[in-house]
Amino acid sequence: MPSRFELANAIRALSMDAVQKAKSGHPGAPMGMADIAEVLWNDYLKHNPADPKWPDRDRFVLSNGHGSMLLYSLLHLTGYDLELEQLRNFRQLHSKTPGHPELGYTPGIETTTGPLGQGLANAVGMALAEKTLAAQFNRPGHTIVDHHTYCFLGDGCLMEGVSHEACSLAGTQKLGKLIAFYDDNGISIDGEVEGWFTDDTAKRFEAYGWHVVPNVDGHKPEEIRAAIETARSQDDRPSLIICKTVIGFGAPNKQGKEECHGAPLGEDEVAAARERLNWPHAPFHVPEAIYQGWDATEAGKTRQDEWQARLERYAEAHPDLAREFQRRMQGKLPLELPTEAMLQKAQDDGENLASRKASLNCLNTLGPELPELLGGSADLAPSNLTFWDGAQAITPETPGGNYLHYGVREFGMGAIMNGIALHGGFIPYGATFLIFMEYMRNAVRMAALMGQQAIYVFTHDSIGLGEDGPTHQPVEQLTSLRSTPNLLIWRPCDAAETAAAWNAALKRQSGPTALVLSRQGLPHQARTKQQLANIQRGGYVLKDCEGTPELILIATGSEVGLAMDAAAELTQQGRAVRVVSMPSTYRFNGQEAEYRESVLPRAVTKRIAIEAGHADYWHKFVGLDGRIIGMKSYGESAPAGDLFKHFGFTVENVVKQANELLEG
Amino acid sequence: MPSRFELANAIRALSMDAVQKAKSGHPGAPMGMADIAEVLWNDYLKHNPADPKWPDRDRFVLSNGHGSMLLYSLLHLTGYDLELEQLRNFRQLHSKTPGHPELGYTPGIETTTGPLGQGLANAVGMALAEKTLAAQFNRPGHTIVDHHTYCFLGDGCLMEGVSHEACSLAGTQKLGKLIAFYDDNGISIDGEVEGWFTDDTAKRFEAYGWHVVPNVDGHKPEEIRAAIETARSQDDRPSLIICKTVIGFGAPNKQGKEECHGAPLGEDEVAAARERLNWPHAPFHVPEAIYQGWDATEAGKTRQDEWQARLERYAEAHPDLAREFQRRMQGKLPLELPTEAMLQKAQDDGENLASRKASLNCLNTLGPELPELLGGSADLAPSNLTFWDGAQAITPETPGGNYLHYGVREFGMGAIMNGIALHGGFIPYGATFLIFMEYMRNAVRMAALMGQQAIYVFTHDSIGLGEDGPTHQPVEQLTSLRSTPNLLIWRPCDAAETAAAWNAALKRQSGPTALVLSRQGLPHQARTKQQLANIQRGGYVLKDCEGTPELILIATGSEVGLAMDAAAELTQQGRAVRVVSMPSTYRFNGQEAEYRESVLPRAVTKRIAIEAGHADYWHKFVGLDGRIIGMKSYGESAPAGDLFKHFGFTVENVVKQANELLEG
Repeated sequence: MPSRFELANAIRALSMDAVQKAKSGHPGAPMGMADIAEVLWNDYLKHNPADPKWPDRDRFVLSNGHGSMLLYSLLHLTGYDLELEQLRNFRQLHSKTPGHPELGYTPGIETTTGPLGQGLANAVGMALAEKTLAAQFNRPGHTIVDHHTYCFLGDGCLMEGVSHEACSLAGTQKLGKLIAFYDDNGISIDGEVEGWFTDDTAKRFEAYGWHVVPNVDGHKPEEIRAAIETARSQDDRPSLIICKTVIGFGAPNKQGKEECHGAPLGEDEVAAARERLNWPHAPFHVPEAIYQGWDATEAGKTRQDEWQARLERYAEAHPDLAREFQRRMQGKLPLELPTEAMLQKAQDDGENLASRKASLNCLNTLGPELPELLGGSADLAPSNLTFWDGAQAITPETPGGNYLHYGVREFGMGAIMNGIALHGGFIPYGATFLIFMEYMRNAVRMAALMGQQAIYVFTHDSIGLGEDGPTHQPVEQLTSLRSTPNLLIWRPCDAAETAAAWNAALKRQSGPTALVLSRQGLPHQARTKQQLANIQRGGYVLKDCEGTPELILIATGSEVGLAMDAAAELTQQGRAVRVVSMPSTYRFNGQEAEYRESVLPRAVTKRIAIEAGHADYWHKFVGLDGRIIGMKSYGESAPAGDLFKHFGFTVENVVKQANELLEG
Repeated sequence: MPSRFELANAIRALSMDAVQKAKSGHPGAPMGMADIAEVLWNDYLKHNPADPKWPDRDRFVLSNGHGSMLLYSLLHLTGYDLELEQLRNFRQLHSKTPGHPELGYTPGIETTTGPLGQGLANAVGMALAEKTLAAQFNRPGHTIVDHHTYCFLGDGCLMEGVSHEACSLAGTQKLGKLIAFYDDNGISIDGEVEGWFTDDTAKRFEAYGWHVVPNVDGHKPEEIRAAIETARSQDDRPSLIICKTVIGFGAPNKQGKEECHGAPLGEDEVAAARERLNWPHAPFHVPEAIYQGWDATEAGKTRQDEWQARLERYAEAHPDLAREFQRRMQGKLPLELPTEAMLQKAQDDGENLASRKASLNCLNTLGPELPELLGGSADLAPSNLTFWDGAQAITPETPGGNYLHYGVREFGMGAIMNGIALHGGFIPYGATFLIFMEYMRNAVRMAALMGQQAIYVFTHDSIGLGEDGPTHQPVEQLTSLRSTPNLLIWRPCDAAETAAAWNAALKRQSGPTALVLSRQGLPHQARTKQQLANIQRGGYVLKDCEGTPELILIATGSEVGLAMDAAAELTQQGRAVRVVSMPSTYRFNGQEAEYRESVLPRAVTKRIAIEAGHADYWHKFVGLDGRIIGMKSYGESAPAGDLFKHFGFTVENVVKQANELLEG
């Protein structure tokens, strides 16, 4: 029977070998955290390598994602479908072992990590999802949701601001099943962290209401075990276990130094480490006894079988709940959602509404049918209009609610939403002003990269927000979002387009959707049945002329009404003008060429795009021959009406520019 | 002589009146913090209303910038050039009183605030600049730099992650002259913060090494005074004074509630507040005795005169230092900088270098001549190559250094850089990977909005970074930056363009500059004297053909070498091809039409843009008729060479696309 040290050394050897072979990577963290991982995975982690999607598995997040070889080693050793060959192909194209853990590439990877601090925030989201789901589904004598979320993290994660946001909220929410391990090795890329990171981290986390186990020797299994035991006994406080470790443990000349953090150890040092660790085996060779010591397939099967039996008893006692649990964990929408009726009603009602208000109407219609909606706002609920009639705050006293007051924590919100979506059972939506999307920018990107269904309600979408001024008025944000692969964006022009946008967001499970909404009222637009259906295509002819248009006005959101007014004026002047409403460039770009040509015929080169956002993006649709009425500077503080006039969003200016273009 | 309470009520009255008249704004914070502001400004703040730019004034930052009327009231009452008429025009177009404090709009405003948490981080930057400047210039018996930085902040600032980053570093750096006042009123926009913000803030800040004064009654001047006295006695710890306050103090029916945070009180409540506060005066009327109680012009003049006399004695004792101090505080570059020689040398040397390495060469050339350079990196110095030969870390032991180890704190870095730039005396540069610009996104925007000279060194600028994979590979970031008004971006293709970029960044005082640099080596390009000069134009013909080109290849950074190779191949095939290098679209867009036409003749519609970033932006230059070889998805983890091939950045693909376009 191999010793714990020998088991841990398998991680060290595989990690240093793979990094060495790839000629790039990070051996320091896997070698430093190997002993902690060995104890956690062999003694505590509830998982089944044969079914990485088992709903009640413990979640494990490597927030210091550069240590990916730690995770690949663990998955390989415990019996996941990750063969040795994949470890040999570490960091190569089309391997299952990319440089950082990437969701969807490797079985058993719970989230993509690497951008520091966000894995920890994902873990907070997962733990919150577990607690909320448990409150919603568990019944006396029937516990079907009951698992831990474990997170490894390093100095970098703790320096990042998002760790403050997420961990503060985790304390408030009393997430007792969240257990984080801090790899306190005193080293970051610039060297010894004492020059730039002198926090009393234990005290800091106690200030958040966490349970802290300080001063654990991260190379002594019994100390690690004891710490985990006390952490698991905490019901109403998340735990931080502060493990003193030696980065690159086992590399005799480089351990404890920055050199082993992010580069191969070098052949000589790898050989020396083999000696020091008493690991005489060839590169990538793991003795059978070691594999047996790690093998988690049988224990995993047993535990999942037990859970399955519990679930079956639950299904007998609570058949409706069990069906609903299965539906939600499979990410299936209810069979009958009033989406089309909602769209039609918005069209028929013909109300002039701010699109944020139209969005609230959608939530009030859909919310009662969608218990998986888990809403929230970064302390702007009364402005974002996200707290719908059936919203109930999630608190330690009401853990089964459906709405999170995230506080003024945009980045934390975005990364926690990712964790909630990754956990499963929920569709998170979260809100802030469009401009403060910037605070959560990389979490939005991570949702798109991971293909997670998160819905962003970004209100106050232009200079139309008025008096709060340039710090609050988006200019470049739409372009930034539109340039993000796999991110669906909608900027609806009225209540009907808002309903279409919400429908699309709910149906899109392959990635996030951003709803970009106005503060100010927007005029209702008349539509035929076909036009109403065409909204889903992202861009469509909202108003047409006889024959071939000589000019096409393209607009989105609050500028569609302006385009319609200008078109009316130009029509009166005898011009043949088409108006295209383009609520989603992403969707429109995805249409077949024929449809796109029917909306924007190549032959019509006189085009004007109108949008109260940065102008440049629209060259994609107006080319070099058209014009763009957009923003080229920051906004100003003034009533919205004054601003639209000041920046040229007036019928007069559109008509003038149109005539210049037509006569030019 | 008016009482302190009466003096404070002038702030309350002006604030509620101005918000009421504007029909929008935030009365709660000014009314709640009026007593604190009264004590600080009347008893401690060192400032001279007649000279808001006096170098040694105390800095005052309102991090909860929505309370702008607090600041406008203070500036008006103490004698700044801000007339009552401006307060009446609160939040109107072209007034000096925008909704949030905006640098450059109002005398006495030290920084633009509103995006929460950043004002606090700016204050950290200012305090750090003061300490560093003091260490560099003060001499025994001659103290010419010696002022405090005061910051007001609210719950929102403390929930934001950037507060963690900045305050942690402030503790490490022992910024004893930074004094922050926390408006602990228990209210944020969603309501009572206890539902989402339960930190023990005193404990949290003690964990950062701050001196904390808890439980100060923010409406009792003597308690406030006592707290400020102890805070000012701390030499080596920043201070947080936690003031218990009532939001909207004085509004009898709305105080202590969210209703008074961000909306006018309403006529009735304003009237009731006048009664409660015993302020019988008409709206916007301040009795003369109150004005006299606030008037800081005489005291300010006396203090500045004293300082001026000190400066003159200093100039006698240390004439060179005094000249240098004046030069730096005026933001003037040294008369002779080796910028042109550096450019010429980079061209002549003809080395193939990664542009990050070329950037380090620039720092090594310019650094010794520019003591105002205050560098740093968010814990990526060995990768960003920002720690040049003359770099010396700023630490509590060596406060006069020129380099900050920011730790893994990108957003904090960006906002601290803004504070350093705003303080004056320094040109801050800060580095991270281009992708992690997203963590600091809004600080970059704030630098551009404020027109501050900050220089960003963003390395690892594309899939060319290789194995670290999609989380680390920028795609949409260039477009995001290019859409940001007043942000100059350079993506140089070799050492000469890198030198030109650094030169431009140093000379640009009207806003920030981002240098977007490669990890990997880039081939040197040959240039004539004219071509070398043309780099400053942002886009120029790097290789031309006989007569009118039939095809133009436009490329930036690492793709310029590819374009040159493809052009060589196409030329061999008999094609007339021009290559345009476009290191700065911002600069190129700013050239006169004639020059732009000479580089990109309108008649040549067959154009291909090549950039390993998101494709869409380039329609601005290739219109609807050209092609773009760019990124449309996220990257992958693999060696860089494999990735460029995988994503079509090969001579073969460029040649193929060119031939298709030419034959199409």
